[in-house]
Amino acid sequence: MTVLLGVDWGSSSLRVFRIAADGSILDTRRAADGVFTGSGSYESRLRAVLGDWLTDAVPILLCGMVGSDRGWMHAPYIAAPAGIADLARALVDVPFERPAWIVPGICFADGEIREVMRGEETLIAGFLARETAAHATICLPGTHSKWADIVDGRIAGFRTYMTGEVRAALLERGALATGMEQRHATDAFAQGLRSAETGVTRALFQARARRLLGMLAPEHTAAFVDGVLIGDEIARETALSPTLAARGPIADAYAAAFALGGRFCRIVDPEPLAARGLLELAHRAGIVAPV
Amino acid sequence: MTVLLGVDWGSSSLRVFRIAADGSILDTRRAADGVFTGSGSYESRLRAVLGDWLTDAVPILLCGMVGSDRGWMHAPYIAAPAGIADLARALVDVPFERPAWIVPGICFADGEIREVMRGEETLIAGFLARETAAHATICLPGTHSKWADIVDGRIAGFRTYMTGEVRAALLERGALATGMEQRHATDAFAQGLRSAETGVTRALFQARARRLLGMLAPEHTAAFVDGVLIGDEIARETALSPTLAARGPIADAYAAAFALGGRFCRIVDPEPLAARGLLELAHRAGIVAPV
Repeated sequence: MTVLLGVDWGSSSLRVFRIAADGSILDTRRAADGVFTGSGSYESRLRAVLGDWLTDAVPILLCGMVGSDRGWMHAPYIAAPAGIADLARALVDVPFERPAWIVPGICFADGEIREVMRGEETLIAGFLARETAAHATICLPGTHSKWADIVDGRIAGFRTYMTGEVRAALLERGALATGMEQRHATDAFAQGLRSAETGVTRALFQARARRLLGMLAPEHTAAFVDGVLIGDEIARETALSPTLAARGPIADAYAAAFALGGRFCRIVDPEPLAARGLLELAHRAGIVAPV
Repeated sequence: MTVLLGVDWGSSSLRVFRIAADGSILDTRRAADGVFTGSGSYESRLRAVLGDWLTDAVPILLCGMVGSDRGWMHAPYIAAPAGIADLARALVDVPFERPAWIVPGICFADGEIREVMRGEETLIAGFLARETAAHATICLPGTHSKWADIVDGRIAGFRTYMTGEVRAALLERGALATGMEQRHATDAFAQGLRSAETGVTRALFQARARRLLGMLAPEHTAAFVDGVLIGDEIARETALSPTLAARGPIADAYAAAFALGGRFCRIVDPEPLAARGLLELAHRAGIVAPV
């Protein structure tokens, strides 16, 4: 039985799920209706994707860019250190035909450095809800990879790397674009990893130079670039055995990078984490009564 | 009086100049007819831009991507260490209505690292032709910034950073794009420089986080990104007082980055270097008799 409707509404996509009392996902719907890509009122867009699920007489909890200052309703960042209780206290009520709230993002300052996350805090809340270790480092790789330090069950601080965005921007056009379908290649990935120590902008050019000189096949360019960018990222992260919330090729790539560096990571499936995190926040906020 | 017609034919533009016996440029013509952007035969394209200059009964020397394996005629890379004499010996004859040759590029291997340049070797030849110091480090900033070590009057080795390409790719679209005209800002540039020590992909995200948190004006994004990328580049280069072949805002940016790091660089105008290099190579190859 559904106890909560969860909504993960990011920049470029929308995912809704029916969440059961144990945090499991009963049903999922997806739409390419992102906060910054869709049109029409947020109310009508959410109504369209939820459809008949609205007959479930349960509250709704949303996370992601939908709470940004350009989203449906601004749910201002709360400052790290922050945990589930801090997030639950800062939910922002949003007017809809069902009771609905938005989860805030988290910001972090370290000297002059500034960090922001919005959406990832909910996945991490899902991780914290089922994790027994008080201390951990969790990596959420992607367009903007996040590395969060968990101390005493709260997000103590975090770091962001533009790994996925740099990858996509450079492979799409310019000197590294090939117009060819890319294939996985362990050797090219390892070459990229080793190159990372010369720095990202120099190592990236290696993909071009080695292609021109016959050391790298054009269809292995992406594998080389992944090696450079992931290699640089994990070399800067000192946790001995971080948890990686990822699946598929991206999980394989990070795991391989750790293994080649003589380290290891624990891999968890990110898919159920958002639902689990939303339910945990709903419990803490008193929106859904614990079983 | 013109003794040589010089042609600098790159990926996206074409520049021709009448070169005097002392290496000075008598006249310049430019066209947006790059090796990879124009169409029609190379002969007809070169004839179109040279026009009435073809009545000068002088040879033609070309450099740049026109000599790549996708250009007019392949002038294979020669291996560093290489100097003016080595380049002059490797000119490639190209059939045209006037005697014409193409300058080869230079490649370099250091362990697994590979480097290539094509076009820059001619500017460096121009620098070497008028330079008395046998040892130097010269930087040619741009889409692919080159740093070349001169030892005993030859290019001993060099390094490439994709500084300009990463800058353009990230400012054009995605999380760092603003759609706003960018303005110079010393403070934003200095912020970017200081951020560079956390690594390029992390420091680049700072432009977004600081904008979201009000520490960086949107129109100063490019200045911040320049600080990150140039800061990372010069931090990896150890020469105490390199020569910078650049002019305008890019020269100012590199000079400021050196100054903020307590180092300095000597700036030379890159514009006359290609003509001077082409004439020097023509002398060595016996194409043009020295005065």
